[in-house]
This record gives sequence, C-alpha cells and structure tokens, in this order.
Amino acid sequence: MFNDYMVELGNRRSCIRDLYEFGRRRAADVGEDSVFDFSLGNPSVPSPAEMTDRLKTLIGGCDPVTLHGYTTAAGDMKARKAIAEDLKNVRGARVSADYIYMTCGAAAAVAIALNAILNEGDEVILLTPYFPEYEVFVKKAGGKPVFVGCDEKFCIDFQSLERALGPATRAIIVNSPNNPSGIIYDRVTLKRLCDTLDEYQKRTGNCVYIVSDEPYREIVYDGAEVADITSMYDNSLIAYSFSKSLSMPGERIGYIALNPSAHSADRLYAAIMGAGRALGYVCAPSLFQRLTAACLDLRPNIEVYRRNRDALYGMLTGIGFECVFPQGAFYMLMKALDPDACAFSDRAKDFGLLLVPGDDFGAKGYVRLAYCVDENMIKRSEQAFKKLYNSYK
Amino acid sequence: MFNDYMVELGNRRSCIRDLYEFGRRRAADVGEDSVFDFSLGNPSVPSPAEMTDRLKTLIGGCDPVTLHGYTTAAGDMKARKAIAEDLKNVRGARVSADYIYMTCGAAAAVAIALNAILNEGDEVILLTPYFPEYEVFVKKAGGKPVFVGCDEKFCIDFQSLERALGPATRAIIVNSPNNPSGIIYDRVTLKRLCDTLDEYQKRTGNCVYIVSDEPYREIVYDGAEVADITSMYDNSLIAYSFSKSLSMPGERIGYIALNPSAHSADRLYAAIMGAGRALGYVCAPSLFQRLTAACLDLRPNIEVYRRNRDALYGMLTGIGFECVFPQGAFYMLMKALDPDACAFSDRAKDFGLLLVPGDDFGAKGYVRLAYCVDENMIKRSEQAFKKLYNSYK
Repeated sequence: MFNDYMVELGNRRSCIRDLYEFGRRRAADVGEDSVFDFSLGNPSVPSPAEMTDRLKTLIGGCDPVTLHGYTTAAGDMKARKAIAEDLKNVRGARVSADYIYMTCGAAAAVAIALNAILNEGDEVILLTPYFPEYEVFVKKAGGKPVFVGCDEKFCIDFQSLERALGPATRAIIVNSPNNPSGIIYDRVTLKRLCDTLDEYQKRTGNCVYIVSDEPYREIVYDGAEVADITSMYDNSLIAYSFSKSLSMPGERIGYIALNPSAHSADRLYAAIMGAGRALGYVCAPSLFQRLTAACLDLRPNIEVYRRNRDALYGMLTGIGFECVFPQGAFYMLMKALDPDACAFSDRAKDFGLLLVPGDDFGAKGYVRLAYCVDENMIKRSEQAFKKLYNSYK
Repeated sequence: MFNDYMVELGNRRSCIRDLYEFGRRRAADVGEDSVFDFSLGNPSVPSPAEMTDRLKTLIGGCDPVTLHGYTTAAGDMKARKAIAEDLKNVRGARVSADYIYMTCGAAAAVAIALNAILNEGDEVILLTPYFPEYEVFVKKAGGKPVFVGCDEKFCIDFQSLERALGPATRAIIVNSPNNPSGIIYDRVTLKRLCDTLDEYQKRTGNCVYIVSDEPYREIVYDGAEVADITSMYDNSLIAYSFSKSLSMPGERIGYIALNPSAHSADRLYAAIMGAGRALGYVCAPSLFQRLTAACLDLRPNIEVYRRNRDALYGMLTGIGFECVFPQGAFYMLMKALDPDACAFSDRAKDFGLLLVPGDDFGAKGYVRLAYCVDENMIKRSEQAFKKLYNSYK
C-alpha cells in the first residue's frame, strides 16, 4: 500500500543506530561506565565560544522578520559572498557567490547535486571505503552506484577506476578526509584522479562531475593538506557542511559551491535549484546561514581529536590490533579479528565496546571507531579491548 | 549532460520570483513607494517577543554539544512529546510522540510523506486551487497528480472528486486554510470528504491517505474553526510548519504527525523515516526543534493580518473588483479583468502592482494577493488599483 523500498530504508536504520540503542540498554543494566561507545560521529568538542557570542549578537541585533524570514532559494547573497571570498582567499578555490547554493548540510548538498546531475540509469562512481548514504542518494536520484576498490593504503585503486569509467558514468564522489578511514588524498593523488577523468572526458566527449564531499576539510592533523578540487578540475562542485567545523551537526547548514568553469555551469546551477525544490528544500535555515557566514574565521579545537587519535591508535596497536592511521576526520578503521566484521562487532558488544562493522562502508573485514569521544572513555576502554583481543587467541 | 527536468524546474523559478525581481528593479528606478508587492507569503508580523526571549534562554542555558548536536532522525523525543500533547489537548488530535517525525518545514513534510506513500505511477488528488509545489513533489515521488475542481465557493466539488477516485489513487492533499484562496473547509465538508474516502476504501480495499498540509492552521479570522482531520479519518497525517504561526519561515521547522490508527502505521512511519533519509534529510534543525517545542503556547498577532484583509477586501470591492473573502491564511483571490490572468498581472505591473497569476495554483482567471504586508502599502496602493480597473473600462 506504500513504498516498500522506503520502509526497508527506514527500518534498516543502519547498525549504528542499533549499536546506539544497545548501548543505552546496557548502560541502564550495568552502568554508563561499562559502555564504550565508538559508534557515533557526533562532535565531542563544543562549538567555539565566539560562535555562541556571535549567535547572541545576531539574535539581539537583527529585525526578527528578516532574521527568521525566507531567504531566496539559493540563500542569502551576503552569506554566499562571504563564503565565496573565504574559499578563494583561504583555499584558492574557483568559486563565485553566484554559483553557491546554501543547503541543509552536506547530506542535502550531495543529494541535491546528484538529483541535478543524474538521469535514470546514469552511473556514479563511489570510491571505497565510502559513506553509506551515498548509495541511498544515488539510487533515489535514479542512478546506479559503481564501486571502485582502494589500494592497501585505502587510497584510490586507479586500475579499478579506469575499468569503472564507462559511457554511463556521470559523476564520482570524492570524500577526503574520508569517513570511515580518516585518509586524505594527497595533491598528487587528486591530480592523477583529475587527469584520468580529463583524459576520459576528452576521449569520449562525456562529462564526469566530481562531487567533493568535504565536511571534514578542517579536521586534519600534523599539518596535512586537503587540496582544493575546483582549481584542478572544471567539472567539479564542493558539498560542504559546517557540522564538524563549527560542531553543530544538528543545525543542518552547508552549501554547494559549483565551479563556475563547469560545463554549462548556468544550466547545472539551475538544475541544482530545481533539484532542491523537488526534494522539498525551500531554503537553508536562515539564522544559521547568517551565523556561519559570520564565523568563517573560526576553527574547532581539533587538538582534542588529535590527542584522542594518538591515544586510541597507540592503545589499540599496543594491544596487537591492526589499525589504519588517520590523517583527518575523527574515524579510524581497525581490522576485525574475524573475517566477518559483523560477528566481530557482535562479540565486542559482550565487552561493552560499540564498533561499527565496515561492511556498509565498503570496508569488509574492518570496524569503524569514531574517536570524537570523551578522552577518559578511551583510557577506560583498554581492559575491554584487551579482553576482546584475548578472546580470539 | 544532466537532468533537463531539474534545469526546467530551476529556471521556472515560478512567476512569484520573477515578480519579486521586477519589483526590485522598479523600486530602484522609480522608488520603493511606487511598488506595491502583493506577491510574497513572507509573514510581516514579527515572531512573538517571548519566542526571542526563549531562544536566548536556550542558547544561554544549554550545553552547546547537545543543543547543536544531532537529534535522532525522527527528532528530539522531548520535543515530539510536547507537540503530541499539545495537539491532543488543543485540537483533540489522534497523535502520538512515537509517530511524530520532525521536518525542515511543511514543504519537506509533504515531500517526505509523498515519497513514503507513493510507488511509480500512483495517483495523488490535488484539490483546486492548490499550492503549486504539490505537483512538483508528487512528480518527484514518481506519482501522477490528478486535479479535482472546486465549486463556486472554492470548496471541494464532490462530483469531480468521485470521478477522480480510481484504482491508482493513493493520497489526497488537503490544505485548509488554503493557499491561495484563504478558504477553510468547514467540519461538514471535511466529514463528507472523509465519508467519501472511507466508502471508497471499503468498496475497493484500497488505502487513500489524507495528507493534511496545515501551515496556516492558526492564521484564522472571526473565530473560524479548522477541524482536526486525524480524529475523523484513520489514514491521515498532518504536515505542519511553524513558519507562519511563529513567523519564522526561513528556519525550516515543522513535522509530520502520522495518525497511529493509519493502516500499517508502523510500516508507514518507517517509510517516512526512509524517505527522509533518501531525500538527504538527516534531522530537522536541532535548536529550532527545541525552541518550537517550548513555544507551542505562543500565537502570532493575527489581528494585523485581519485588519489587512478587511482593508484590502473593502478597498478592492469598493473599486469594483470581485474578490474571494478569505477566512484564514493571508492570501486573497481576485478575479482578473482579462480572461488571461497572466496578461492581467502584466498590465498590473505597469501600475507597480505585483499580483501573482492564479494559473499555477489551478485558479485560472484569478490573481493571488498576499496581504502579509505593511498596512500602509495597502492604503497607498488604492490609486494604482483604480488605474488598473479603469484601464479595462
């Protein structure tokens, strides 16, 4: 009587949700201190205090009819101009306020971009490991996901990419720093990706758009660089969220920045506006459009995440686990001690450890740990990880 | 190279947008006082002062990690409980916190509901006149809009409805108080609608869901009643927005309240969660979830809108125009003096009057006036309306 696929999507609320609920039950049974929840990517660092100050200033100083009123569908022009200037100055990006479209976060940005680009049956390349919602967004836009493997460093397997490119390829999603691996594609890798696609475009006459999903762009360690894609490749757009950079994932605010040099940029930008409309987006939350545009100079206190990364990586490898060292974001992949990562995640639950199986992320045989957590929890979890490790010996 | 339908949707940014831009150009040319903009449904009454106070209290008194953090996909349970209690107490609605799903406004609520309900080719009945985006949402959900005419009072034409019901009918959108007419379906009309659908469901075994889009529920005049649909009909859901009731249309906050007595309510609620996910919604803005739940007792100062309605209706009918007297919302339909409402709207622009042709709303031969405007503008517009009227004599 209604849409079975949507029922399935709604019920398969990802194992992250199941883990969370298991954790709540266990906390009620045996106490909060016996649950070690590494499942959720909810920033543990509060928003910068200056952001809260500027929020209060906005609310106190603006006419509420304007402050809470509709913006145009593409977003407040003052906010878009500030974002474009910042992207140009800080990242050397090829962007323009006229091609920025404010969104309800990066998920909406990716979903809207795909609905603008794809026609029924078009293919979108997903580089493993990948954020599972990409597959959902591609399918809803009428597209078909095509998975490309990674090399032993969780970087792009270019042979696999070459094989995946075909007449139906219309887009590729790049997510660096990566969820779930924390890997950053370096400039050489990105350049090679752009050259591969450019060569393919020239040879076939097809356009392949890079959708660069960059919510973790500012969450990087040890001075790692996240190179700007728009300055390397014409047919590109940035999908961004302030969720992590301002620790406000619940407020749903981000943007699409379409490269003005993209093929038929005006028509594609119109398609983005059309897709936003068709998916029920009217405008991005107006107060937060203005607030984020006034907070582009603020950065999260990522030192906390770096300390957590080092503590967790050191502890786990010390016990004997094999982990992928993250260069950014706040996720780490750990090799499961069972070929079946779900079985491994299930056994971990017996010790109060909530670890997400990598299967949904295209990282079979691994579990994902989110380390945007209280640093004391990492310390307290050591015994549980040891028990888990020993249970496999 | 990308989606032509989305390009068209994006470019056809509705004539409301075109009118707005014409108005801005004219204001720059001949002055703000010579533009009479009746095109936009942006509330002119500011949010209640208490709302701003409570917003400040929330920001000052909550841990920012929680306040700006993700809520579950369905929304903050405390907010959902408050909304459910309020709907039960104030409107006698059949709702439950477990079947409330917080959304980014009513547009998202309607889009998500349709994507949850419809399969490819299913039909959705739209009662004329209707909000034009319904057609966009139905099509994106794979459905087919079926238009049902109205009677001379802009109320449901039941003969036309009976003819429209068929094996593919899966939903009907009800919007009362209505945009663009301001008409409210009285209790007898709603009861007849429910009886008609119930009889059809019994006869055929098909489910037909009522999607009741209620953003103007609290904007009613002269003590008019907006009866609750969930207490009359099992297969129903409310799509609501706080945009108009708290004068914050830019903040995108509302909800779906699914009737717990709906057929397979659990599966339909799962489908709503799945559809939200597939369209790129992660959760509704978290700060505004909490704020609106704390402001359910606040009402807008609708006295301003009532005065505007009376002033505008009196003025226009005094000149000789024929208007539909609105019982709610802040829109009024006026009969065009040309069989082609677009030509009439074009001529009105010569006098600085921005009136939206009714064609997109299924109200051919009429123009829509939004009277959520400065009351002085209504007075100042009288000469322009007289000139428009006389230009047709």
